[in-house]
Amino acid sequence: MAGNLENWAAEIRAGDVRALSRGVSAIENRASEAEALLKLLFPYTGRAFRVGITGAPGTGKSTLVDRLTAHYRSEKKSVGIIAVDPSSPFTGGAILGDRIRMQGHSADEGIFIRSMAARGYLGGLAQSTGDATLLLDAAGKDMILVETVGVGQGEIEIVRLADCTMVVLVPGMGDDVQNLKAGLMEIGDIFVLNKSDREGAGRFEEQLRAILQLVPDRSGWRPPVVRTVATENEGVAEVARQIGLFRAHFEKSQDRPARELAYWKDWLLRLIERRLVERVLGDHASAEQFERAAAEVAARKKDPYAAVNEILSRSGA
Amino acid sequence: MAGNLENWAAEIRAGDVRALSRGVSAIENRASEAEALLKLLFPYTGRAFRVGITGAPGTGKSTLVDRLTAHYRSEKKSVGIIAVDPSSPFTGGAILGDRIRMQGHSADEGIFIRSMAARGYLGGLAQSTGDATLLLDAAGKDMILVETVGVGQGEIEIVRLADCTMVVLVPGMGDDVQNLKAGLMEIGDIFVLNKSDREGAGRFEEQLRAILQLVPDRSGWRPPVVRTVATENEGVAEVARQIGLFRAHFEKSQDRPARELAYWKDWLLRLIERRLVERVLGDHASAEQFERAAAEVAARKKDPYAAVNEILSRSGA
Repeated sequence: MAGNLENWAAEIRAGDVRALSRGVSAIENRASEAEALLKLLFPYTGRAFRVGITGAPGTGKSTLVDRLTAHYRSEKKSVGIIAVDPSSPFTGGAILGDRIRMQGHSADEGIFIRSMAARGYLGGLAQSTGDATLLLDAAGKDMILVETVGVGQGEIEIVRLADCTMVVLVPGMGDDVQNLKAGLMEIGDIFVLNKSDREGAGRFEEQLRAILQLVPDRSGWRPPVVRTVATENEGVAEVARQIGLFRAHFEKSQDRPARELAYWKDWLLRLIERRLVERVLGDHASAEQFERAAAEVAARKKDPYAAVNEILSRSGA
Repeated sequence: MAGNLENWAAEIRAGDVRALSRGVSAIENRASEAEALLKLLFPYTGRAFRVGITGAPGTGKSTLVDRLTAHYRSEKKSVGIIAVDPSSPFTGGAILGDRIRMQGHSADEGIFIRSMAARGYLGGLAQSTGDATLLLDAAGKDMILVETVGVGQGEIEIVRLADCTMVVLVPGMGDDVQNLKAGLMEIGDIFVLNKSDREGAGRFEEQLRAILQLVPDRSGWRPPVVRTVATENEGVAEVARQIGLFRAHFEKSQDRPARELAYWKDWLLRLIERRLVERVLGDHASAEQFERAAAEVAARKKDPYAAVNEILSRSGA
């Protein structure tokens, strides 16, 4: 088995698509080999640049990712794409449908595309996505694009893992409201105004710039607004250029080591929590005990501290 | 000590202000007596109605809370007020300054006022606030008003604990943008348009109602918009009436038991997590080990799974 694992890791490092795909599945399913695989591959990570891309459904994120990928490929950069849907427990048909447009790239060994979805009881999709980017990183992908389906809290948590966060907006359609909510303005390193050939794009851009004035800058970076028409490939090179500028800024920023340390502290803390909670609530009987305890507390038949103490002592933890 | 605890709990149940205040401090500081106290008092909870009040700074939340309190007192209802500041590690001067206006009430035994702020490493202000409402509930307060300083994610987490969530908005001042973000529209059971004698109030109300149309209703409740001028006591009785209507709706709603169960499941899970993580990282040496491990992982000197395994095994957990 150890030999198999080492072969598997070597295949991933060589960029083998099937080996990578099995690796992401193992991460997604929390299979036990995922950990062993990541241990082997971890020393080869830290080289890729990760771009998180979020925005409401219908803003054209997939098309933008598609065109940006073609742009990077024309520069001989390899690209890994992860499309994430926190709202669905299944790797969604919608994402895969979107991805059909990408089939022009499917014969290209320099591109790896994969969807991920929320599974299981204890959440952790953000962490699974982060781990999948480690695999792609070890596989030698130069650019990793992490795209979310929507813009909820879960999505924000996911794109925050990236080195650079891109927010995609579209003028009109009452999107103004949808787009301004949920702290989107604070997380964007780059704002893309897609479908900018639509009526009202100029006014929307003005509003957006006015709002961005209110957001404090982060160690000297003022998030740019880039107008695109992704379907026509307009503005895509400028998006790539801005990502490059941000990367150059980010890599010499004093914030970077602190951000990296904070990322790993958070990562370790979550895994510690998950491990500990899984030990206590992981099996079926304990999960049932937990449900029963919560119902008793809600009915005031038991106090919540007594309930927690019972759960912790019965589990032997 | 057990006798002292029982006296303390009895004093809290009798509504003694000093005993209550010491109880909230114990919760805030995670003192060991807090748990014992809550265990004793828990059977006497579940009677108060908790209203969470959020909105940007400067919307007049404190004045509104002040007037609403006077309204409830005129109906002989007792009131507990908790003002929460998640952004500050100290019980803030700003809140206490605001509270000076409340000193007209300070001789009134039917009112308890207290500020709470974020403390310590592992967060948990939302849970501390929830626990403080349990104390006030056991002390026989009829209405508990939980007011936040701002409107960030932390504040939303806090007001979601309440039975009824009130969002306070103000026309103009570019607040439009500030107010619409961060999922505020989805959490409000009642919207208060304060300072509604200002220019542009009518247009702002229209915009607000238009946005609320987009939010799905929750089991038959359509959040009302109430115009107030809290400084003039205008609209305050209507706010109280809407809270009463919501309460009547909420108490016969089929959602209520499910919401209560979800609340306690979340509460138990957080305490289980906190207990387990505190066992592993609670002491100074472990916290240092954790910091060191994160730095080694960030530098790619150690893989993150190995780091977690070491932390878990050295702690004996």
